[in-house]
Amino acid sequence: MSLPLLQLALDHTDLDAALRTAQQLHPHVDIIEAGTLLCLSCGVDAVRRLRQQHPEKTLVADYKVADAGGTLADMAFRAGASWMTVICAAPLATFASALEVAQQHQGDIQIELFGNWTLDDARKWRQLGLKQAIYHRGRDAQASGQQWTQHDLDTMKALSDLGFALSITGGIIPEDLSQFKEVDVKAFIAGRALSDPASGIPRAAAFHQAIASIWGTL
Amino acid sequence: MSLPLLQLALDHTDLDAALRTAQQLHPHVDIIEAGTLLCLSCGVDAVRRLRQQHPEKTLVADYKVADAGGTLADMAFRAGASWMTVICAAPLATFASALEVAQQHQGDIQIELFGNWTLDDARKWRQLGLKQAIYHRGRDAQASGQQWTQHDLDTMKALSDLGFALSITGGIIPEDLSQFKEVDVKAFIAGRALSDPASGIPRAAAFHQAIASIWGTL
Repeated sequence: MSLPLLQLALDHTDLDAALRTAQQLHPHVDIIEAGTLLCLSCGVDAVRRLRQQHPEKTLVADYKVADAGGTLADMAFRAGASWMTVICAAPLATFASALEVAQQHQGDIQIELFGNWTLDDARKWRQLGLKQAIYHRGRDAQASGQQWTQHDLDTMKALSDLGFALSITGGIIPEDLSQFKEVDVKAFIAGRALSDPASGIPRAAAFHQAIASIWGTL
Repeated sequence: MSLPLLQLALDHTDLDAALRTAQQLHPHVDIIEAGTLLCLSCGVDAVRRLRQQHPEKTLVADYKVADAGGTLADMAFRAGASWMTVICAAPLATFASALEVAQQHQGDIQIELFGNWTLDDARKWRQLGLKQAIYHRGRDAQASGQQWTQHDLDTMKALSDLGFALSITGGIIPEDLSQFKEVDVKAFIAGRALSDPASGIPRAAAFHQAIASIWGTL
């Protein structure tokens, strides 16, 4: 378990705006994500141009793949993705084909946890060789008032115990982080909180400060 | 219950190739779909240019939305989509926000059924006002040998009984259609079967012939 990383999610619809935000924030974050909205708006160019602009950065293609895992992985990893997301509702065969392609590119697959899934599913994902999952409060769930609950925290802990490193997202602010102390956190993912040109850099600093004060003794 | 329609799924990675296939096939199909692969490859231009080329056709944006339903629906319907897909794993709030935007554009939302979901979920979707669902054999599931089963057919029938019109996809061939006689079929979706320039048009004719012979007395 290493120190949690900070991931910048780019959910712009305009690629130039996304590239400008990445250019401004990249020294202050550990991972850059081409968000689903950006990818569906601008296509695979979003991944390709972020990779060109940030050749050394961990880059996530947030495709939330449900099918055709190998084909979409091939597209994402050829364009320069480090990691690609697959939605938990996808068949195991989709995870397997995506992971196979990811590994050919020294990349990785992250499971996007949405809706109905079980710890039994999680065990099957681990057996396939998957090691990363993303735990959400969805944007719409937040907007409808859903908070982080003890159930969320217990589930994250259970996933950690199964061997998953978790990335956590959904309106996260630095003040939230201490409640995830018992979880194996790979990264905290923030989008809108970091994308504001005026407050993005100080906000990123506040995240790093909170991470250091909570996990700094690791 | 009207006669099942035929939907052409465009899962190209190159937009010009997709547009050529649509140009060739459009008189022989009822619905054109910008597939997930095409949308993630070429962005929202895929929807926009298909709409420009086929101003009168029912056009599906197969986004398999899991979050940010309103934002993605806004993008898809402004670009000219008639229907947009939302994955069953999405929170109800995502369905609600997507449906609200769809209805502002006289469009509709289709639920993509993948993985774990229940008839209780289906009842909640109906209560929200959703009327269409897509029943799959996933591409990867097919490749790993999964066939249509009695369980598939029973589930489709149960969804029909709840009031859903179903679109059915996953390596469908005309010879398969008769087994879906008891289901409220909105459309049969075919991609690779129709996209071959040499055999696409005769294959589309074979679908229409099978549909007429099975459902033609409606």
